[in-house]
Amino acid sequence: MAANHPPVDRRARRKAATRAKLLEAAQAVFARQGIDATRINEITEEADVGFGSFYNHFESKDAVVAALVEDTVGAIGVAINAATASLDDPAEVVSAAHRTLVRWAAEDPEFGWLLVRLEATHDLATSALRSYAVRDIKRGLDSARFDVVDPDLALAATGGALLGVVKLVLRGHALEDAATRHAAGVLRLLGVPAGEAERVAARPLPAVTVAGRDD
Amino acid sequence: MAANHPPVDRRARRKAATRAKLLEAAQAVFARQGIDATRINEITEEADVGFGSFYNHFESKDAVVAALVEDTVGAIGVAINAATASLDDPAEVVSAAHRTLVRWAAEDPEFGWLLVRLEATHDLATSALRSYAVRDIKRGLDSARFDVVDPDLALAATGGALLGVVKLVLRGHALEDAATRHAAGVLRLLGVPAGEAERVAARPLPAVTVAGRDD
Repeated sequence: MAANHPPVDRRARRKAATRAKLLEAAQAVFARQGIDATRINEITEEADVGFGSFYNHFESKDAVVAALVEDTVGAIGVAINAATASLDDPAEVVSAAHRTLVRWAAEDPEFGWLLVRLEATHDLATSALRSYAVRDIKRGLDSARFDVVDPDLALAATGGALLGVVKLVLRGHALEDAATRHAAGVLRLLGVPAGEAERVAARPLPAVTVAGRDD
Repeated sequence: MAANHPPVDRRARRKAATRAKLLEAAQAVFARQGIDATRINEITEEADVGFGSFYNHFESKDAVVAALVEDTVGAIGVAINAATASLDDPAEVVSAAHRTLVRWAAEDPEFGWLLVRLEATHDLATSALRSYAVRDIKRGLDSARFDVVDPDLALAATGGALLGVVKLVLRGHALEDAATRHAAGVLRLLGVPAGEAERVAARPLPAVTVAGRDD
């Protein structure tokens, strides 16, 4: 099939494939042992790629982290954003985002641990999702759906709550109902009355599709 | 002063002093570069203690982490518990605990970062405070002050929210009002109506005194 492509394309494709292998390997090693404790040769060994070729793709370990966040968490943010674009209620958008992230972390523990570890040490996980979260909280405040005095504080608290729940689920707490109950808790924290928060969190979850993910 | 003590006491005191130096050094190095990336010789160098004598006090780096958590976070838990023992309202106890922890993390950033890093990778910070938090949430549910279906989930969410807010404050967000607003958010998440949550979070904070801390 590839034989019809000119060589320049083949080289580009091969380069992209190696980069993808390195990113996948880095994600696996980071999830296993943490970012701080990972050395570049452990990434190249996991990827079955020569040590030197790492530097054809990335300047440093931090560059891998940044690319991983952009590729993984960023893509998820884009996908959730697209799936919730038709929802008028900012509370429902926030609920759908939290429910989707909890579900994905549970169904793909490697992604879940990456989210937890990135956030703790690099604070990059939130930066990729942050612009959406900031916008959603602002929309909720503008429409008086939410009621908080300090949106930055509310963002930090709800993001932290998400990571706490993701960790709980990764450590074996049943996913069943956890995502929905967590979303209701987040809405309460943002000022939605308890009963209403539960009703919004129980609405049908829009299907979210991310390029390169099979769920 | 010490000359009147028999030699065995002097040895015991010297041993305790070295152990304390190693713990203090470990806390500083962990806060600076993370637990995973820290090697034992970096702790002994920071403490200005011979590498070999480390093993007279601790079996491993993990043993240092455990001792540090017990000494630091455990002592804070005991102190908050003592300071709030006379409060009848479980919501006020939860609020006082969260407010105190946010304030201390802000006033002692080394402690704050230790809390954040320990929680992310070792999940020990919550285990030292966990028994109090579990009891307080249970008391709130038994008295119908709180309203959550899954106490474990609520514990994970409120603990995560605390760490998110601690990080925000460590990164420079004004402490002023943050501790109180965070506590109100936690009470809302636990099912306390918004206005009532704010009133409880604004009650005078009991003075909490920890052995070895000067605030």
